[in-house]
Amino acid sequence: MSFNTFGHMFRVTTFGESHGPAIGCVVDGCPPGIPLTEADIQPFLDKRRPGQSRFTTQRAEPDQVRILSGVFKDERMGAQVTTGTPIGLLIDNVDQRSKDYSDIRDKYRPGHADYTYDVKYGQRDYRGGGRQSARETATRVAAGAIARKIVPGMTVRAALIQMGPEKIDRARWDWNEVDRNPFFCPDAQKAKFFEGYLDGIRKKGSSVGAVIEVVAEGVPAGLGAPIYGKLDGDLAAAMMGINAVKGVEIGAGMGAAALTGEENGDEMRIAHEGLGNDGRPVFLSNNAGGVLGGISTGQPIVVRFAVKPTSSILTARRTVDRYGGETEISTKGRHDPCVGIRAVPIGEAMMACVVADHFLRQRAQVGESPAWPFAKPRS
Amino acid sequence: MSFNTFGHMFRVTTFGESHGPAIGCVVDGCPPGIPLTEADIQPFLDKRRPGQSRFTTQRAEPDQVRILSGVFKDERMGAQVTTGTPIGLLIDNVDQRSKDYSDIRDKYRPGHADYTYDVKYGQRDYRGGGRQSARETATRVAAGAIARKIVPGMTVRAALIQMGPEKIDRARWDWNEVDRNPFFCPDAQKAKFFEGYLDGIRKKGSSVGAVIEVVAEGVPAGLGAPIYGKLDGDLAAAMMGINAVKGVEIGAGMGAAALTGEENGDEMRIAHEGLGNDGRPVFLSNNAGGVLGGISTGQPIVVRFAVKPTSSILTARRTVDRYGGETEISTKGRHDPCVGIRAVPIGEAMMACVVADHFLRQRAQVGESPAWPFAKPRS
Amino acid sequence: MSFNTFGHMFRVTTFGESHGPAIGCVVDGCPPGIPLTEADIQPFLDKRRPGQSRFTTQRAEPDQVRILSGVFKDERMGAQVTTGTPIGLLIDNVDQRSKDYSDIRDKYRPGHADYTYDVKYGQRDYRGGGRQSARETATRVAAGAIARKIVPGMTVRAALIQMGPEKIDRARWDWNEVDRNPFFCPDAQKAKFFEGYLDGIRKKGSSVGAVIEVVAEGVPAGLGAPIYGKLDGDLAAAMMGINAVKGVEIGAGMGAAALTGEENGDEMRIAHEGLGNDGRPVFLSNNAGGVLGGISTGQPIVVRFAVKPTSSILTARRTVDRYGGETEISTKGRHDPCVGIRAVPIGEAMMACVVADHFLRQRAQVGESPAWPFAKPRS
Amino acid sequence: MSFNTFGHMFRVTTFGESHGPAIGCVVDGCPPGIPLTEADIQPFLDKRRPGQSRFTTQRAEPDQVRILSGVFKDERMGAQVTTGTPIGLLIDNVDQRSKDYSDIRDKYRPGHADYTYDVKYGQRDYRGGGRQSARETATRVAAGAIARKIVPGMTVRAALIQMGPEKIDRARWDWNEVDRNPFFCPDAQKAKFFEGYLDGIRKKGSSVGAVIEVVAEGVPAGLGAPIYGKLDGDLAAAMMGINAVKGVEIGAGMGAAALTGEENGDEMRIAHEGLGNDGRPVFLSNNAGGVLGGISTGQPIVVRFAVKPTSSILTARRTVDRYGGETEISTKGRHDPCVGIRAVPIGEAMMACVVADHFLRQRAQVGESPAWPFAKPRS
Repeated sequence: MSFNTFGHMFRVTTFGESHGPAIGCVVDGCPPGIPLTEADIQPFLDKRRPGQSRFTTQRAEPDQVRILSGVFKDERMGAQVTTGTPIGLLIDNVDQRSKDYSDIRDKYRPGHADYTYDVKYGQRDYRGGGRQSARETATRVAAGAIARKIVPGMTVRAALIQMGPEKIDRARWDWNEVDRNPFFCPDAQKAKFFEGYLDGIRKKGSSVGAVIEVVAEGVPAGLGAPIYGKLDGDLAAAMMGINAVKGVEIGAGMGAAALTGEENGDEMRIAHEGLGNDGRPVFLSNNAGGVLGGISTGQPIVVRFAVKPTSSILTARRTVDRYGGETEISTKGRHDPCVGIRAVPIGEAMMACVVADHFLRQRAQVGESPAWPFAKPRS
Repeated sequence: MSFNTFGHMFRVTTFGESHGPAIGCVVDGCPPGIPLTEADIQPFLDKRRPGQSRFTTQRAEPDQVRILSGVFKDERMGAQVTTGTPIGLLIDNVDQRSKDYSDIRDKYRPGHADYTYDVKYGQRDYRGGGRQSARETATRVAAGAIARKIVPGMTVRAALIQMGPEKIDRARWDWNEVDRNPFFCPDAQKAKFFEGYLDGIRKKGSSVGAVIEVVAEGVPAGLGAPIYGKLDGDLAAAMMGINAVKGVEIGAGMGAAALTGEENGDEMRIAHEGLGNDGRPVFLSNNAGGVLGGISTGQPIVVRFAVKPTSSILTARRTVDRYGGETEISTKGRHDPCVGIRAVPIGEAMMACVVADHFLRQRAQVGESPAWPFAKPRS
Repeated sequence: MSFNTFGHMFRVTTFGESHGPAIGCVVDGCPPGIPLTEADIQPFLDKRRPGQSRFTTQRAEPDQVRILSGVFKDERMGAQVTTGTPIGLLIDNVDQRSKDYSDIRDKYRPGHADYTYDVKYGQRDYRGGGRQSARETATRVAAGAIARKIVPGMTVRAALIQMGPEKIDRARWDWNEVDRNPFFCPDAQKAKFFEGYLDGIRKKGSSVGAVIEVVAEGVPAGLGAPIYGKLDGDLAAAMMGINAVKGVEIGAGMGAAALTGEENGDEMRIAHEGLGNDGRPVFLSNNAGGVLGGISTGQPIVVRFAVKPTSSILTARRTVDRYGGETEISTKGRHDPCVGIRAVPIGEAMMACVVADHFLRQRAQVGESPAWPFAKPRS
Repeated sequence: MSFNTFGHMFRVTTFGESHGPAIGCVVDGCPPGIPLTEADIQPFLDKRRPGQSRFTTQRAEPDQVRILSGVFKDERMGAQVTTGTPIGLLIDNVDQRSKDYSDIRDKYRPGHADYTYDVKYGQRDYRGGGRQSARETATRVAAGAIARKIVPGMTVRAALIQMGPEKIDRARWDWNEVDRNPFFCPDAQKAKFFEGYLDGIRKKGSSVGAVIEVVAEGVPAGLGAPIYGKLDGDLAAAMMGINAVKGVEIGAGMGAAALTGEENGDEMRIAHEGLGNDGRPVFLSNNAGGVLGGISTGQPIVVRFAVKPTSSILTARRTVDRYGGETEISTKGRHDPCVGIRAVPIGEAMMACVVADHFLRQRAQVGESPAWPFAKPRS
């Protein structure tokens, strides 16, 4: 992770501002020979795309991705595949509405990075948030679509499990519900509630936060690079680096503090009928969230993160301007009453990218994973 | 972050196992000319050192650090200073008690990384946890002592604010209390309570988790490298990478999800009497935890992390062995009833290292920080 | 340096194949506030552009660069400047002539990377050389144009000093000549000779190698990061990484082996009239090529590199195909009789990028350079 | 490569000064399960060790290496093996003769990095050259011994092929001779000549340069990471980063410039009796030096580098001191009349480390190398 690149062997470098001509990224280190066209990427972008319900910003961006390099269709071979060279992806910005920026170019919006960009760099592209805009996350989602194809058998899904103080009932969790409501909520009943709830927030010009849970299944045991490239450490950086995220949990998360050792440690058995039957260890609980000592256990990897409420709200807030004056600001125009909603596909993408990176790193250091269980030494 | 190195310009590479001859690290990228002797590092190691109360493991390690390189005392100049070359640090392992490992070398202790190391690498140094042992953290604490000297005016402190389900009363927070009790607890009254509470846990051979809060004050605004080297992203990785940590929060943390935009966004004023009076912006709250858009705001940086309960407990747990058999294991001998206690100086060290790294990175890209406030353009 | 990214603080990531829709790069870590428009970059691309004389390939690429991000023109402030965020650059491929590739898609051209790409990745984009094409270097040249603006007072120039076995007369070196002939040759007389010489080569369908010398003046003393980020080490990687380069020299270069210590060591004096008069040390020779111990001396940095002859020639060569058969191949169509010519602006770009990176790295670690000469200690 | 770390997946971080208590390194990313004890490393250190003939410095360093971590001997399993965790290596400095440094602490020795370290860092450890001393290279040699064990079937050897202007006769090349003379010279007749030649140089208190050739055989085709992690680019950086090296060549090297395309391009045939008979391509010459497009061809990798003459000589040279005064300096005491000799094992080590790193990187991105030759597509 450095500046605008993340990953070590599966490397993603992004560029672009909210209101420039285009955003894009370069995906480097992708294995060769993987079938890849725009059609593999577009569905994930469509999921993240704004303006799909009244609960997300009304900016109209088609978010059509173009692959500029790194793939090749050899007529004799069949499908277009990755070549192992860097994959350039480009998404044009279409709906950069011209607008009067006189207000936000001088004033710092509370909760936004206006002040910090200014004090760091000495200036900023204030149009639509510039580089700090969540628009950048489209490129991660595109990269994530490629990452998903690298780890055989891996499935990455995410869901919104809390909005404001309102939590879902985990007993009602149904992954199929996630794509049936505009909140990516796995609890149909709660999703119904959220409609009215968020409409209320939206009409007031207010906003609320959310908690997203991301689950990766089918991740082989043994991924992760201790001590400073731990799988959970990299996941924490990846999730905390999503716009507006303020907390990240693995498995039992912050709640682990309140547990005893007896409650927390996940006991192990050998898989048998009813628990899978491949002779691999299974865990009788998953407080670890699929990671022990920074290395995947083979269980589902479970990460949660909290997204703060949208900082752009209708209410006037006290602030200062870049000339040192005290003033007020309020936000008009399109905005998301709960930016957490659109963080769902972004969280999935970050999970996919981090696991793909570690999959390649493990292959580098260890090659074929050791055969487990081990043979008993002769005594 | 990669394998056993962290940091980008201030780089720390560690090595060593619990029961090898020594542990150590290389600190690279340290600015030259900084006064540095072992006496600058030792107090922080002493704070982390086990066996200082009945509440931490009774392993007797003097943890004496030796500086092997990277400093020089020019007789004519005075103090020994850093030279800009890599600083090699070495800490001998002294108390590697010989012991019967026949139990843990074959069986996987629930909650430990025994299984994941085995399934990743095909073997492991099982003596005392090997590389997964918290012993490694001594080297980070040593590196952190150097990092503290890099950012002028920075103070880094941490405290234990929750043990098991028991939280401190923040109204009673007193930094001076932290060094007066064996829990690094800022609430004297709660610390008193913890004595009896943890004695009970200890005597049962059980364990509990904890929450640690780390605060860095005096960090200049403008540090952080968006998008994938955000200050909070790097802090999240650093804290999640500490042994047994399962959750990391910045500012309002996971609780941010439950806030509205009106509650969350920190309003700004210009510093005046009572708020500091240097003409810089001040924030009227700190839900941001000192970071907006991945860049420091100049407010205190506030990070919390949850440490799970020690996995080594007296109660027998169901587990498997490396040959695929089902079995049970329980831990005898020295252990920490609450490993979270000793995570306090480790959290401080990671904070110091991350901020020092970003301090150097900001100087690289921007040089002298821009003068704020800006001059009004002529109209 | 890793895969398709180079640099540590000034980072360039490139993508694109010869016959894809576009090539491009992301320049990350550029300081903010630097005036930058396409007009600052285009002249360097124009210099590298093919088809400008009969001595370079006749592919007609306008090589128009577009800046997609990382710059902003604040109406009130004046010039468009860099913002500190990543600069996306895009160059469309225009002249990807459709062509019959049946020959080169199966056969490996001697001297080209056809075989190695195939045996590494399992397939390759064979159209026009794909990623191994020198077309990729356009993106480096664009990045180099930005790098030049980072180091105050630095001038980077290069020249062709040998073609085939024919060397220039260094006594006739005139930098002004470099832009007056199609060979970037500083010796007008030799350039005249090269016209006939290379015409002969060209008409035979043959090719020759070349030696390029790159000189950076105005580089401050003190840049370089020993031991494994030495300035000369990074320059060697940068130049050897240019297509077709087989040797790199700093200062006396390979010839240093034949010198005695008396001949080689550059003696020092204090600058005075005739040698500059700023009180800085001057060196009475420059066998070091401006680098000692991996750190710049303040003298001109002098690097030379050898470019092998173009591998695409008219003569039939023995080779094999990807199915294990023995065969022959010869190249028809457009090609460069001496690819070394176009390596001149590329060498400049790599020099500029490496020095810019080290300029930022030095600022990170040391900040303001120490004041030299030092004050005498009191005795 | 950055500061004091090199490699991407096989990573080596070194520390230590000539006259500090010890030097050492951390080798990170080494695959697990490789048998490794001090006895695997020591022979290479012994080869580099000074004072073994009258032609190298008389400093008496036993250079005994100790492995501090990263290996484990499981009693039941047999040999001590690497565990996949970082390998800490330590070499004590023994013969740091106390000496009067009053001369060199103030004056800059021409050809040395005294001035550049001072002007970069503001001070330097002047005892024995401090960090710029060739003593640091012992740690690389130790790392190289480990790297050799990573690439199955690889052999790395090096030889001195030129001393001063005197070149060996390649027709007399015999690898067996290399260990029979104090110059690592493969030409017995020339080695005989060098004895008298270098004695003359030594007695005059003068010095000469040298050229070293390093050859890696048994390197699989397909290693290398274009465009900016090319195998030859990384080798160039590695060799140029060795103390006193001023030029690096791959294959035909600088001489490639003088060749025509017909002479340079290595033709290909399929291996048959007399050329190997594994059905792989063979090349009928090796101007490429085993690398095309930055990727290994499967041929021997051939690198040469030039070492400048030792800068420490008896003759007084003009120089300046750190206070801005003009003065003279000459070197008394132990020194190497030709430092190039001891660069032979160092060159081998750097080759081994670079290839090992790329072996792991290739495994990461591509996994099992593609089966060559390819099956013909059905028409």
